[in-house]
Amino acid sequence: MKLTILGCYSATPRTFTNPTSQVLEIQNHLFLIDCGEGTQVQLRKYKVKFSRINHIFISHLHGDHFFGLPGLISTFRLLGREKELHVYGPKGIKEAVSLFLKLGDSWTNYPLIFHELESKESELIMEDSKVSVRTIPLEHRVYTNGFLFKEKEAPRTLNVEAAQRYGIDRSQFNNIKKGNDAMDENGKLIPNKKLTHNPPKPKSYAFCSDTVYNESVVPLIKGVDAVYHESTFLETEAHLCDRTKHSTAKQAAQIAKSANADQLILGHYSTRYKSIELFKEEALTVFPKVELADDGKVFDL
Amino acid sequence: MKLTILGCYSATPRTFTNPTSQVLEIQNHLFLIDCGEGTQVQLRKYKVKFSRINHIFISHLHGDHFFGLPGLISTFRLLGREKELHVYGPKGIKEAVSLFLKLGDSWTNYPLIFHELESKESELIMEDSKVSVRTIPLEHRVYTNGFLFKEKEAPRTLNVEAAQRYGIDRSQFNNIKKGNDAMDENGKLIPNKKLTHNPPKPKSYAFCSDTVYNESVVPLIKGVDAVYHESTFLETEAHLCDRTKHSTAKQAAQIAKSANADQLILGHYSTRYKSIELFKEEALTVFPKVELADDGKVFDL
Repeated sequence: MKLTILGCYSATPRTFTNPTSQVLEIQNHLFLIDCGEGTQVQLRKYKVKFSRINHIFISHLHGDHFFGLPGLISTFRLLGREKELHVYGPKGIKEAVSLFLKLGDSWTNYPLIFHELESKESELIMEDSKVSVRTIPLEHRVYTNGFLFKEKEAPRTLNVEAAQRYGIDRSQFNNIKKGNDAMDENGKLIPNKKLTHNPPKPKSYAFCSDTVYNESVVPLIKGVDAVYHESTFLETEAHLCDRTKHSTAKQAAQIAKSANADQLILGHYSTRYKSIELFKEEALTVFPKVELADDGKVFDL
Repeated sequence: MKLTILGCYSATPRTFTNPTSQVLEIQNHLFLIDCGEGTQVQLRKYKVKFSRINHIFISHLHGDHFFGLPGLISTFRLLGREKELHVYGPKGIKEAVSLFLKLGDSWTNYPLIFHELESKESELIMEDSKVSVRTIPLEHRVYTNGFLFKEKEAPRTLNVEAAQRYGIDRSQFNNIKKGNDAMDENGKLIPNKKLTHNPPKPKSYAFCSDTVYNESVVPLIKGVDAVYHESTFLETEAHLCDRTKHSTAKQAAQIAKSANADQLILGHYSTRYKSIELFKEEALTVFPKVELADDGKVFDL
């Protein structure tokens, strides 16, 4: 699982800071999460192959999370895309993007499929044999979802050494691979579990931005490998959180701690602060494994 | 009159080339012309004061000319703007931008005034005591206008030396400044024109992008000081112009020549060519004074 941060600053794009967008590589998928203005330029800059993106997840319809979407969709057309593109986002996203394309008489040549979200409960929105994506309802000024990306457990693989130890004939190996138990030389049934390796623990990643401190997120992301949680402010500006529906670095750390996450990645920084290191320092007072997102940074999770 | 090119490449924003946007400084106005994705970042990069922009002119609703507009309008709000902002562009622009703002529950705090255009004839769309702006109907795949920016002629100024030569009493100077004739010592009427300086020739600038080769532009921009004319292609790709409704560098030069323009500025280059110098070479075969627009370039006109 590899996470590439294309942008992780709040509010407006600036010369050296970009609004929210990131690419999650998971089980051969490239998932684009949020798409602030300039995302397509960031994709080029960090050499992400446009053609490998088939799913885009938009958390909410504030400009710094989706104003880059019409441009990216148009560019896909100019690049001769033919494959389906799936866009998951709040209700209204289809009308808005379609209107922009219609005004320019620029319909896509490829199937553009919107999956509009309006539930306030967590729901499964995408699934295939290797990965699932669920929404994480967040609490912001407008309808907002985070997203939980989860690998599925891989099939158990044959433990040849164990099979030989139990005296299992090779003719039964294919059957074991299919999940069946096997008979030893003496006709005793050996359970499949003893003849196969445990698959590696499936990885998971939770994206939680933008949101006020909201404990109802915790059970949804329990035990996650990495959680990206917004930290727009430091505790010195905690009084701004209620009105703007954002979090402090300490609050983000509290969520990661309560969820027993393996690591916390901070982002969505207000540009009022001199150094983003301050966010890390604050979060470390609550939670031990904190990383700072920054534009262009890559996390191997 | 100062023209700052923020972006002048066609199609999509890339790491080092930006879609169309430029700022014209004329008679203390800062007019923003077109607003491709990333324009607000370019404005910051080239240190254009956001607060000095009160008028935005959008030629047409293709992404590379207006996808930066919702973001810029939102940023104006974040910057605490209170002054009116006037946006001139094709019918539909108001609905599209309004929908984007509405979805994000991000109405502006300042008056945002749309002037929607739909006439296929040239029309006066903005005027004050010092400057006028007229549309230049262009022929592109969607409804498109160029814009002609014209200084008004300054008032004639008193020629003190001439007045003294004619023996005009100082008491009449104010009257002369108001445009009246004056009486000399012998009671002879001296015409105002002989007692005042000719004002400097008012400057004018024509922005013509995007368009196929279209001679009906010529009478509208006759004698213009500078014409920016798109040159998406070279003559080797002239066969693409009809379908895409774009021009070659040679065709742009032909328009400048027919209009008897003082200088031609080329832009809106396809990124297929290795060097934009090729556009200049081609245009110079037809017209003598050719400049190449490039991102960040400033023209003192």
